[in-house]
Amino acid sequence: MIAVLKQNTSKEQRENLIAWFRSMGLQVHISEGDYHTILGLIGDTTKVDIGLLESLSIIDSVKRISEPFKNANRKFHTEDSVIDVGGLKIGGGNFQIIAGPCSVENHDQILEVAERVKAGGATILRGGAFKPRTSPYDFQGLKATGIELLLEAKKVTGMPLISEIMNIRDLDLFEGVDIIQVGARNMQNFDLLKELGKTDKTILIKRGLANNLKELLMSTEYIMAGGNENVILCERGIRTFETYTRNTLDLSAVPMLHELSHLPVVVDPSHATGISKLVEPMAMAAAAAGADGLMIEVHNNPEKALCDGAQSLTPDQFDVLARKVRRIREAIAE
Amino acid sequence: MIAVLKQNTSKEQRENLIAWFRSMGLQVHISEGDYHTILGLIGDTTKVDIGLLESLSIIDSVKRISEPFKNANRKFHTEDSVIDVGGLKIGGGNFQIIAGPCSVENHDQILEVAERVKAGGATILRGGAFKPRTSPYDFQGLKATGIELLLEAKKVTGMPLISEIMNIRDLDLFEGVDIIQVGARNMQNFDLLKELGKTDKTILIKRGLANNLKELLMSTEYIMAGGNENVILCERGIRTFETYTRNTLDLSAVPMLHELSHLPVVVDPSHATGISKLVEPMAMAAAAAGADGLMIEVHNNPEKALCDGAQSLTPDQFDVLARKVRRIREAIAE
Amino acid sequence: MIAVLKQNTSKEQRENLIAWFRSMGLQVHISEGDYHTILGLIGDTTKVDIGLLESLSIIDSVKRISEPFKNANRKFHTEDSVIDVGGLKIGGGNFQIIAGPCSVENHDQILEVAERVKAGGATILRGGAFKPRTSPYDFQGLKATGIELLLEAKKVTGMPLISEIMNIRDLDLFEGVDIIQVGARNMQNFDLLKELGKTDKTILIKRGLANNLKELLMSTEYIMAGGNENVILCERGIRTFETYTRNTLDLSAVPMLHELSHLPVVVDPSHATGISKLVEPMAMAAAAAGADGLMIEVHNNPEKALCDGAQSLTPDQFDVLARKVRRIREAIAE
Amino acid sequence: MIAVLKQNTSKEQRENLIAWFRSMGLQVHISEGDYHTILGLIGDTTKVDIGLLESLSIIDSVKRISEPFKNANRKFHTEDSVIDVGGLKIGGGNFQIIAGPCSVENHDQILEVAERVKAGGATILRGGAFKPRTSPYDFQGLKATGIELLLEAKKVTGMPLISEIMNIRDLDLFEGVDIIQVGARNMQNFDLLKELGKTDKTILIKRGLANNLKELLMSTEYIMAGGNENVILCERGIRTFETYTRNTLDLSAVPMLHELSHLPVVVDPSHATGISKLVEPMAMAAAAAGADGLMIEVHNNPEKALCDGAQSLTPDQFDVLARKVRRIREAIAE
Repeated sequence: MIAVLKQNTSKEQRENLIAWFRSMGLQVHISEGDYHTILGLIGDTTKVDIGLLESLSIIDSVKRISEPFKNANRKFHTEDSVIDVGGLKIGGGNFQIIAGPCSVENHDQILEVAERVKAGGATILRGGAFKPRTSPYDFQGLKATGIELLLEAKKVTGMPLISEIMNIRDLDLFEGVDIIQVGARNMQNFDLLKELGKTDKTILIKRGLANNLKELLMSTEYIMAGGNENVILCERGIRTFETYTRNTLDLSAVPMLHELSHLPVVVDPSHATGISKLVEPMAMAAAAAGADGLMIEVHNNPEKALCDGAQSLTPDQFDVLARKVRRIREAIAE
Repeated sequence: MIAVLKQNTSKEQRENLIAWFRSMGLQVHISEGDYHTILGLIGDTTKVDIGLLESLSIIDSVKRISEPFKNANRKFHTEDSVIDVGGLKIGGGNFQIIAGPCSVENHDQILEVAERVKAGGATILRGGAFKPRTSPYDFQGLKATGIELLLEAKKVTGMPLISEIMNIRDLDLFEGVDIIQVGARNMQNFDLLKELGKTDKTILIKRGLANNLKELLMSTEYIMAGGNENVILCERGIRTFETYTRNTLDLSAVPMLHELSHLPVVVDPSHATGISKLVEPMAMAAAAAGADGLMIEVHNNPEKALCDGAQSLTPDQFDVLARKVRRIREAIAE
Repeated sequence: MIAVLKQNTSKEQRENLIAWFRSMGLQVHISEGDYHTILGLIGDTTKVDIGLLESLSIIDSVKRISEPFKNANRKFHTEDSVIDVGGLKIGGGNFQIIAGPCSVENHDQILEVAERVKAGGATILRGGAFKPRTSPYDFQGLKATGIELLLEAKKVTGMPLISEIMNIRDLDLFEGVDIIQVGARNMQNFDLLKELGKTDKTILIKRGLANNLKELLMSTEYIMAGGNENVILCERGIRTFETYTRNTLDLSAVPMLHELSHLPVVVDPSHATGISKLVEPMAMAAAAAGADGLMIEVHNNPEKALCDGAQSLTPDQFDVLARKVRRIREAIAE
Repeated sequence: MIAVLKQNTSKEQRENLIAWFRSMGLQVHISEGDYHTILGLIGDTTKVDIGLLESLSIIDSVKRISEPFKNANRKFHTEDSVIDVGGLKIGGGNFQIIAGPCSVENHDQILEVAERVKAGGATILRGGAFKPRTSPYDFQGLKATGIELLLEAKKVTGMPLISEIMNIRDLDLFEGVDIIQVGARNMQNFDLLKELGKTDKTILIKRGLANNLKELLMSTEYIMAGGNENVILCERGIRTFETYTRNTLDLSAVPMLHELSHLPVVVDPSHATGISKLVEPMAMAAAAAGADGLMIEVHNNPEKALCDGAQSLTPDQFDVLARKVRRIREAIAE
């Protein structure tokens, strides 16, 4: 860690500060310039509160050299983590396609979609029972009933499940759910993360719309510091000024997260783009960028009678996507 | 609401869609062009799920004309809301300054800061007991003890309190707290909002770092739809590419929110800028833009021995700020 | 085009406005609601000045249904454009790799890099002679001498050239350059675009750091409206809050631009990410997303003696990238 | 300047690098840690090419301590610069209001608006003759004729003029124009900036939509390094995800630029917000934040017959704004 002191620092202030650093077990190296003095802090700086440091009047700026996350850090765990999901593996070369409807709507819908995506090549079933919606007037999910329908689809198809949690008091309902999803809007709901850190469930955590990769890894740290190391990261688009797409899918996050962390990285092109035509090319791009998995919204539309397609992929479109993604996977494996 | 149909829509599809709109009690006006057909939907469209509509294959795009929020909407409630806070009023010309430390640290600190900011002109005391921190290794707040210390400061100074809630299970602790703050990271923690909507506490809701004003008002709607109309909005900076300041304070949100909504709007220049030197000018600017209140971090620094200032304002700096803000308030009142 | 009128519009105002629209040859369809009146404008609205329209006091908002760009619009030119570059083709299934150093530095450097990237599979040589640098104190390029060195490399290797123009008065120097690049910082230098529209040179236009796809296509329109239809679009990252990467590469721009326009789309992962390790995975992802070409920075580093690598790819790293990209191309062609 | 070396650096590489820094006249202080070695570089680092440095394979990251701009830097020029504009002063406590139409449209319009804004309290007349428009089909300005009309208005009213240049070849036309404006889209048109640096005209440079304050000051450096020190900075909103306002006015830029630089800072709330109702509160906020001037769009609308208002302020609205801004100025002067 580097601390740059302001120009007008008195000798006494400086010595007090250095003594304080040393009391935390850090070595301090000093470089003096005409306008600034630079302190190089050597040792375990993970637990230094950078906010407190920056608030001191004699500090100009602080820069971390080591990343502040430990458990998720590739530096201290060079091998890829391989996470077990109901017998399937993800990470370290193991690739899985998660597919299913945005919301569980009824028995026939979830069963039909589950059978179809399984046939197409999906290995994990997704389905929302608790839905975070911008408007209180929009459909909020089937809740407990939705989870029950998912469990039925799991029983019939044998596919492991993923579903989103919004409130820790619903945790018991997720007993049969294989991966608990923390949505983008809850990525910094630290109380929820802490509670999930006490469980042994696999957690898929989505990057928030305004969160950088460091913050994603620090939120992961909340889970892992609690003892739960079964974490999967998910890139699902960030908020930018571009309006043609719902969000901007940041695919460079895939190799960057692999560089920073040993955890598997999954990409959700459906929520990122919000446009069905873009899902297939972005799924292929994600696979080519080295993602460990995909999360694809597939929908057997109840409005089918009304209009013959949707923003989600139809099962037929999913079949094509899965085939093309397999070809990309083969191409990068050669 | 306007729905634009795609070019290749069949007559049958169109008629099905129009029948569906009519079944929801909407009138439908049709404009046909060479490349597109436009449907004007007239009636109560607040509860139309725009996501579902956009997902239909025959829809090119959808545009709301009426805003999707009702309870907070200025159109249906033209008078400014005036919120009562422990006998004080905020909104509709009533201006309050909230001040206090970021975190409650100990008895002497909170008492001393409270006395000082009260003397300087603050009318409401802030202090964090539950602290959302990016890192699990940073100080997480004194929790219940922090609330107790705040209550003591309230008893001594008579100032109403504001403090942040992070988990609804802590609600009972907030009984003596006059305003419950929902922080930026929880602005779309919809379960928390719903629960707060069932209480009769005054809620101050901060705009999320990546949230636009419509989303802030929709989150407000979660609270108000539950029956709790005591809501104060707070602008505290959004996330942009600029790195000199911690966030970018969007002061145009103040008059824009006043245009869209009847609720009071408070500005927090401390968290927005992250730089103590910018707090005073931004506080003055916020007052000049018509804010109904300010939220200022003031800190009687325990590191005082070590270094004589901080990122938060000192009580002396707060005195100057409060005096200058009063002059701005007088200037705009004339 | 849709114009939404404000609530308090008088009958006379409305009739004046409608008469004005009709005088422009537009048909006007009217939908009246309780709070708003919606006008559907049918006809050639490309040349309606939306800024003027929005400025009228009786207008609440305006929404274009047809895109305001004509020449680049897929709707009016459904076939992919195939651009000829010194005998090579790009677009419509033809894929080219552009490679070379960021700046031309000297004779040996450009010749060596050119030979190496040609051997590795690059088909077009890039090299900067005029360099837009944030600081006036940084190296500004070899200018005319740089172009001469590029022409020599072209003569030796037979590779067509691309180089960036910053000032129209340098146009004569670009006679032997096959593609003139308009950089991100000049994407809205409309005077430069107009002048380039009068030439018959192939123009590669890079998306600006804060520009959405519509603005990119409108800038393209400046060139094409002048009669020059040889335009290649280039995605090179946009500016966001993420700081790990220099910019955020928006790969969804590739399929989205293909949907909106018939022009070829090239991706520059080197400038987008600013990190050599990310260039290969992002190049592969771009190819998988359907890009018509890549632009890769390759550098035979003069600091080689000093340190054995660089942010640009080495020729060896480029060989690997080109081989992997070919495999992706085969996988998506099957 | 601080350079952090990567972990796996050889002793030889490190010594080569240090020798290279010393050859540039810099002192090098070394701090060694377990995972990183930190070099503190002391001396004149302004002309070190940070891009080159970051590209070296042994460098992990580089951080400037001193700002890379010299001429505009408050550190080397602690007094506020006061710029003379046709006998008026701006900066160092001198406040000016620039007002006028977005585009010069005809003789009567510009004369009438000029007289009216002068009467209301404006001291400098703005008017666009060369207009950067997103679409080539939108009105591009009256060009030379527009400048002539402005000069006539100057003659009649005695007000100094400001107008935007888009192409250096038009420079001669600006002889009688007192301030040449560089628009947001040309903020990094470095060739234009260099040429303006050779003149002795006062230049007002607007912040680009995606540019941070450092880049604005570096662009200023292009002008000042050429010998022209008459530069005024202008904040006019940046591009963010918020869509209610056209851009997001970053008023914290005002005190921040004053901290970093001695140059005057003007705010343009009209272009920033794009909404006439927000112009007055944002103008007041800018004055309260310490801006040295305002730039306000005032329009004697030719569409008046058609509709009685506009997005620009009417002269009457401007009168009110100017009066309120004067009160704010008095309040902050006390």
